Amino acid sequence: METEAQQIVISTIADLERGWNSASGEIFAEPFADDADFVTIRGEHSRSKIAITRGHQAIFDTIYKGSKVQFQVIAARVIAPGVILGHIKSTLKAPSGPLAGEHNSLASVILVQNAGGWKIASFHNTLMAKG
Amino acid sequence: METEAQQIVISTIADLERGWNSASGEIFAEPFADDADFVTIRGEHSRSKIAITRGHQAIFDTIYKGSKVQFQVIAARVIAPGVILGHIKSTLKAPSGPLAGEHNSLASVILVQNAGGWKIASFHNTLMAKG
Repeated sequence: METEAQQIVISTIADLERGWNSASGEIFAEPFADDADFVTIRGEHSRSKIAITRGHQAIFDTIYKGSKVQFQVIAARVIAPGVILGHIKSTLKAPSGPLAGEHNSLASVILVQNAGGWKIASFHNTLMAKG
Repeated sequence: METEAQQIVISTIADLERGWNSASGEIFAEPFADDADFVTIRGEHSRSKIAITRGHQAIFDTIYKGSKVQFQVIAARVIAPGVILGHIKSTLKAPSGPLAGEHNSLASVILVQNAGGWKIASFHNTLMAKG
């Protein structure tokens, strides 16, 4: 049985998976707050929904072209009123590029509740080491 | 001039640097909440101050023996009342082990204010790609 926090994370990140798998930076970035922070598996930090949209569109069109991702919420908890910390495991299948093959990563995501609902304030992703 | 959020992050993470550089898991873990989440550069997730203490003591005694770290707060902002998101760049110098040499990483850290002051609820670290 899922907790309310888990349900909120699952529902908020659904667009990430849908956006990735349809190669749409715009759909991918939809759940992010306008001033959201994002850190990639390369330790690159960007800020703002617009930067997240453009950055992902760029990789969907090039190195991650044709790739598919699946997200799984492995933990979620309320850390302050209106603030949820979630941990998400992703499985990426990429046909080509630097991550050709199948890879797992683990993301920490922070959701903040505001008048427009729950939005992602912070997303930080790291490749899971193999073996 | 630093913002209040930056000052709080700088002061909260001071123990991390001191703990790492004196190879003390206990000092390193001091700023963490009892139920804090931690994700390493290998995408390994652990939970609780005790696990963070033990996990770091184990690497200080082995693969990171003799290593020194420096932290620099590159951004910090309030994302909800009593909740700060900080981004920290670290420079690690390791004499031996899998990360022998000098490496940079970028961490997202979430601080939550409670009766005991500001504590780290979430720390997620990623190696910065070279070149």
